[in-house]
Amino acid sequence: MKFGTRILAQADRLASFSEDEGRLTRTYLTPRHREAGEQIAVWMREAGMEAGFDALGNVVGRYAGDRPDAPAVATGSHMDTVVDAGRYDGIFGILTAIACVRDLHARGRRLPFAFEVVAFCDEEGVRFGVTLIGSRALAGRFEPSMLEARDRDGVTLRDALIAFGGDPDVIPSLQRKGLAAFVESHIEQGPVLLDEGLPVGVVTSIAGAGRARARVTGMAGHAGTVPMPGRRDALTAASEMALAVESLCGSRPQELVGTVGKFAVAGGGAVNVIPGSVEFTVDLRSGEDTVRRRAMADLESHLHEIARRRGVTLAWEPFFEMKAMPCDAGLQSALASSIAAHGVKVRHLPSGAGHDAMELAHIAPMAMLFVRCGAGGISHNPLETMTAEDAEIATSVLLHFLENFRP
Amino acid sequence: MKFGTRILAQADRLASFSEDEGRLTRTYLTPRHREAGEQIAVWMREAGMEAGFDALGNVVGRYAGDRPDAPAVATGSHMDTVVDAGRYDGIFGILTAIACVRDLHARGRRLPFAFEVVAFCDEEGVRFGVTLIGSRALAGRFEPSMLEARDRDGVTLRDALIAFGGDPDVIPSLQRKGLAAFVESHIEQGPVLLDEGLPVGVVTSIAGAGRARARVTGMAGHAGTVPMPGRRDALTAASEMALAVESLCGSRPQELVGTVGKFAVAGGGAVNVIPGSVEFTVDLRSGEDTVRRRAMADLESHLHEIARRRGVTLAWEPFFEMKAMPCDAGLQSALASSIAAHGVKVRHLPSGAGHDAMELAHIAPMAMLFVRCGAGGISHNPLETMTAEDAEIATSVLLHFLENFRP
Repeated sequence: MKFGTRILAQADRLASFSEDEGRLTRTYLTPRHREAGEQIAVWMREAGMEAGFDALGNVVGRYAGDRPDAPAVATGSHMDTVVDAGRYDGIFGILTAIACVRDLHARGRRLPFAFEVVAFCDEEGVRFGVTLIGSRALAGRFEPSMLEARDRDGVTLRDALIAFGGDPDVIPSLQRKGLAAFVESHIEQGPVLLDEGLPVGVVTSIAGAGRARARVTGMAGHAGTVPMPGRRDALTAASEMALAVESLCGSRPQELVGTVGKFAVAGGGAVNVIPGSVEFTVDLRSGEDTVRRRAMADLESHLHEIARRRGVTLAWEPFFEMKAMPCDAGLQSALASSIAAHGVKVRHLPSGAGHDAMELAHIAPMAMLFVRCGAGGISHNPLETMTAEDAEIATSVLLHFLENFRP
Repeated sequence: MKFGTRILAQADRLASFSEDEGRLTRTYLTPRHREAGEQIAVWMREAGMEAGFDALGNVVGRYAGDRPDAPAVATGSHMDTVVDAGRYDGIFGILTAIACVRDLHARGRRLPFAFEVVAFCDEEGVRFGVTLIGSRALAGRFEPSMLEARDRDGVTLRDALIAFGGDPDVIPSLQRKGLAAFVESHIEQGPVLLDEGLPVGVVTSIAGAGRARARVTGMAGHAGTVPMPGRRDALTAASEMALAVESLCGSRPQELVGTVGKFAVAGGGAVNVIPGSVEFTVDLRSGEDTVRRRAMADLESHLHEIARRRGVTLAWEPFFEMKAMPCDAGLQSALASSIAAHGVKVRHLPSGAGHDAMELAHIAPMAMLFVRCGAGGISHNPLETMTAEDAEIATSVLLHFLENFRP
């Protein structure tokens, strides 16, 4: 096997750089961030690139083009992890790109563009509660106020960055100009490709999301003394609302996903007390912002109807919105051709999760290649898996794309 | 008004004996228990009874019958409270009986039975986690092991009782023999009489209860990446189950009540994670044990069906059962006659909550008179209310019953 075995072995090696004993956790501006980044830089140089940390802690590798004034194409993904993470989320997108360069370099092949591979320093936002830090900086969207974010020990991002050897003053200059394309490879983190027996797929757009908090207030009462017809039970009302979220999105499975993730009886509840108050959250996502916004509005009015019918009150508070980021049509089509060239059926699918690519989309045409995720599609979990065969095909597809792409 | 105003004033007085500043909490074997009991004994003696604490901390008042060998009839309710209680739960049943004796005594009237009024020391079980302590002893059902129950400071019931001046060794002798009847007056703690505009009602039985814990296990997942059709969402499965409890009991509102009181996503849940595990409790009650047990079995099989259909697992663990205690038909009929004699429509209704009377039912014919509860029927809460007019009618009904009852 040309790429797959080595990529999986490298992913295992990176998984050893962990803050936690017995599980993988690697957060921004820690000694393990440095060690993982240095290892990645070593592999980049071995592959034929110039590589090193930038002022924010990203590792950037550059494989020069066939002429000095060639435009640049970039790829990459993140090297940080969630707590108790899997070993392919983010990492695969870095390693697959290094493998492509290594092959090109071994063949003495230069591309008609400079090719940059970025190992983003922080996408997950575990340490400072700010996500997509590395890719925001390259997109020129890093806000100076983020430097004041603090970790749980009270250390600011600014101080941690200086201690790491970075330089907050240089961040604005990290913004990339004139990037011809940004293409990120990533494990799917879901079961669509797995269920359909496909190793890779083309992302159509990174879904937008809307979130709201709901508080249902009914009337608490004694479980034995209040007859059923007179109840204003906040729990059964909220249960009906959770099913309404499921039903709305389930009726349009190609367009929407919706989740009630938090759901709690106020005060924890008691076995013999009719719940008087329940709070829950709703998360709706769609590749189409108009679809999502319309669904959120329909949902809100439906939940109010349920509340009215049941004699409870509903407080509805939207608290987060992120717009969808469509992938570039030309790049999607180029990736699709490279997939078809491998004899693989071309599957287009949206990305329900956010990725570094959505930041880069602000400054360059953007596309994403998804790779099959094993174990039911589980991610953000040590059970996350991928096969060497899929890593092989995905890398070969990316390489085909790079060799055929003309900016 | 003959009784009502005084009874409400006495309830206010007793509410001043509280362990907590600014709210009413009075638990077993505390200085406030002593003070409240002494006040009750004073009122009993003023009414013409012999009265004092027994060896367990109950206050027992006795109004001798018209001849030394007359049988005994007892009434009473509890003088302890829940935390942050209302002032009529329990207390009203004591005060209304004292008011009857006071009236009889003022008229020089003796009954053809000795009449005992018991202020039970502990029904709620707040301090030691053991309920119905006083009435169990009178029913001969006090278990010696209960003496080893500990409060949150580690003090045993035995030690606390000795410090209070009680005597654990005497408890077995507290069992009453040859009691002709036990009749407890109590606020309804629910909205039935309030909704129907009736001051009093006759209890048909004290409902039995069955409780179970359910744990639903599905598959946690990323809220953005798992399409709706592939989800095994523990939260929406548990929501459908909670609605099934409501629907089952709602279809038989005269026979059943059912409540999901606790309901929690494992780990609290996160806005962007499909819940993988949810736990909830079910409490089913009915005046008919066969109805309740059948409903519990039907429910269990229905919830398993829901689990199968949704691809989640359900662990179902019954953990508590209390049989229903029917009220004596003859006593119900006698109470009904006394209510009718006051020109009030006779309403029979079950008691969804447990009461001291259910213990006494083991040794004597038992009945209960319910009195309307204001504020939507709320109880175990400082908002608990009753009116002087209802206290007046209820006391007059009890007095009529006593003057017409022949053991």
